[in-house]
Amino acid sequence: MLAVGDDLRVTARRAVVVAVGSAVRLPPILARLESSRVIDSDKVFELEAIPERLLVVGAGPIGVELGQALARLGARVTVLCADGKIAAIRDPAVLASAKSALAREMTLHTRSNLEAAEERGDEVWVRFRGEDGEVSEGTWPLVLAATGRAPRLGGLELERAGVELDDKGRPREFDKTTLQCGEAPVFIAGDAAGLRPLLHEAIDDGQIAGRNAATFPEVLPGERRAPLSIVFTDPQVASVGRRFDSLDLSTCSIGQVDFGDQGRARVMAKNHGLLRVYGADATGALLGAELVAPAGEHLAHLLAWAIQSELTVDQVLRLPFYHPVVEEGLRSALIDLRTKMSAKTGGAAPRKSSGP
Amino acid sequence: MLAVGDDLRVTARRAVVVAVGSAVRLPPILARLESSRVIDSDKVFELEAIPERLLVVGAGPIGVELGQALARLGARVTVLCADGKIAAIRDPAVLASAKSALAREMTLHTRSNLEAAEERGDEVWVRFRGEDGEVSEGTWPLVLAATGRAPRLGGLELERAGVELDDKGRPREFDKTTLQCGEAPVFIAGDAAGLRPLLHEAIDDGQIAGRNAATFPEVLPGERRAPLSIVFTDPQVASVGRRFDSLDLSTCSIGQVDFGDQGRARVMAKNHGLLRVYGADATGALLGAELVAPAGEHLAHLLAWAIQSELTVDQVLRLPFYHPVVEEGLRSALIDLRTKMSAKTGGAAPRKSSGP
Repeated sequence: MLAVGDDLRVTARRAVVVAVGSAVRLPPILARLESSRVIDSDKVFELEAIPERLLVVGAGPIGVELGQALARLGARVTVLCADGKIAAIRDPAVLASAKSALAREMTLHTRSNLEAAEERGDEVWVRFRGEDGEVSEGTWPLVLAATGRAPRLGGLELERAGVELDDKGRPREFDKTTLQCGEAPVFIAGDAAGLRPLLHEAIDDGQIAGRNAATFPEVLPGERRAPLSIVFTDPQVASVGRRFDSLDLSTCSIGQVDFGDQGRARVMAKNHGLLRVYGADATGALLGAELVAPAGEHLAHLLAWAIQSELTVDQVLRLPFYHPVVEEGLRSALIDLRTKMSAKTGGAAPRKSSGP
Repeated sequence: MLAVGDDLRVTARRAVVVAVGSAVRLPPILARLESSRVIDSDKVFELEAIPERLLVVGAGPIGVELGQALARLGARVTVLCADGKIAAIRDPAVLASAKSALAREMTLHTRSNLEAAEERGDEVWVRFRGEDGEVSEGTWPLVLAATGRAPRLGGLELERAGVELDDKGRPREFDKTTLQCGEAPVFIAGDAAGLRPLLHEAIDDGQIAGRNAATFPEVLPGERRAPLSIVFTDPQVASVGRRFDSLDLSTCSIGQVDFGDQGRARVMAKNHGLLRVYGADATGALLGAELVAPAGEHLAHLLAWAIQSELTVDQVLRLPFYHPVVEEGLRSALIDLRTKMSAKTGGAAPRKSSGP
């Protein structure tokens, strides 16, 4: 029997699927204020006017998407983040390119820790400390907290079903492939699992968790799609397949293209960004990519489809790339990757029939 | 020995590659005028001012791309075409959608034949007759002839090398796979071949023709990419793989999505267009597609990559489609196609594990 809210109790004969979503997680310094001038990403859409100035705490996907949107609507936007990451980018070269693109519209304080905040008149006063120890302070009429979301598993009394939560409110034992909590008859789908809080993944979660709950105690791992995440800034940020920090650079190579000089990107006056593709030297397989690029959401789909289809870099280069399109930038990065792989493996020059 | 211009003669020991490109082909009624008020697609880029009104003769890719661009730059544009086709679209449903999208910015007279033209003062007077026999006339300060290009093979004296040209100036015998003219030591690449006058195809042509000329008399068919053509209007037009008029509708099914109600397209206020996908009932293979759609150039690349990789519709539906993206419209069309294929083959309901 699980508790849902104060009034509802659920008793399952076989197993349950928990898909209760997630809730905004405010940093304690901001939560303590209980101020209407501190809002979360849900409340942004209730704003009746665009503030003249705005502090965004957190530079993850939500922080930079909303920060840039509000900047374009007229606000002067300052973004604070503690860990130096922007838009969850892992590749340092892509991160540098994204920072320089976004810094044209927002003031970015990366590696800055929130130290104190209080309401002062019509504004919120905030003090933060940079990695170098330098202390800054300022007041803003509005603070947007974009510091992530947490699974809403607390209060369900999951322990009655044999599921223990850790101090972050996540199950101690959880199988990412079956979505089962330990050996318990509990399957978690969607944001509540805190794995990949993305709609298209949540739909797959629901199918896997639902099927396993129905067949419990027989459970099977689900079929997953190639990892794909997109941040809807301009230029867009995306990561596909294997992440930079999981690569062994002694057996993998990196190809890249700078969109500063890419033909179609120049025609559109959108020539900012960097795309990096990762390949396995031994097999020639395309493993992953990270990018900040014009039409990035579309390039990311192409890359994800190629990666899930287990194509090699050579095979991808035999697919059509039209002219003049942004996809030609992706081709340049793949040619660069092929050249680097050949150089490392001491392989022959790229095969002529593969085309440029 | 071939003639190149008046002064140059080329003698080849083994074989030649002819890559002389194509030339604008004016309809005789306009060519006869010899007027500076009748321009072709090259001369558009020399215009010093945007004309107040413009008649475009021809509604192929070049005619509609330039017509729409000039309309957006302020000209009132009228487009005439004889065969009822727009942007080389073959699928009647996609054609209807493209016509309605483009007619918002240009006056379209499809199935109208140019009958007469003459210079009158500062303008060009033109008379044309519709399919229904109705005669229209008008005067325009500028006429853009966008009636296609022809291979520039005339004057090369190709007959010396054993190549006969037909009355359209194309070789009577030509192998599209080896690019060889009959048994002659002549290989034609690029627009001069008049096959697919597209840059990315021309690059492949050059490799195939060059390799075969070098190994002549041993010649081999070249590896080709999935057919892909894109027209850069807004919304964009594209066709991929098998064309509508080559389908046997007793063994093929068609799925579609109308972008009028597609989520992301609505968010961008770009919700116009139609995408149709073609599949083989027996094998479930994705065969081709035609579309007029927002981000059409990107959807077309995804489709071309899937078709060249010989994926089935089910396999494509197991690839990632993010949210909220225009690619979700493509997914809707593929789900529609899968449903129609299942209904026709009396197959089981779509497999659950394939996702929505």
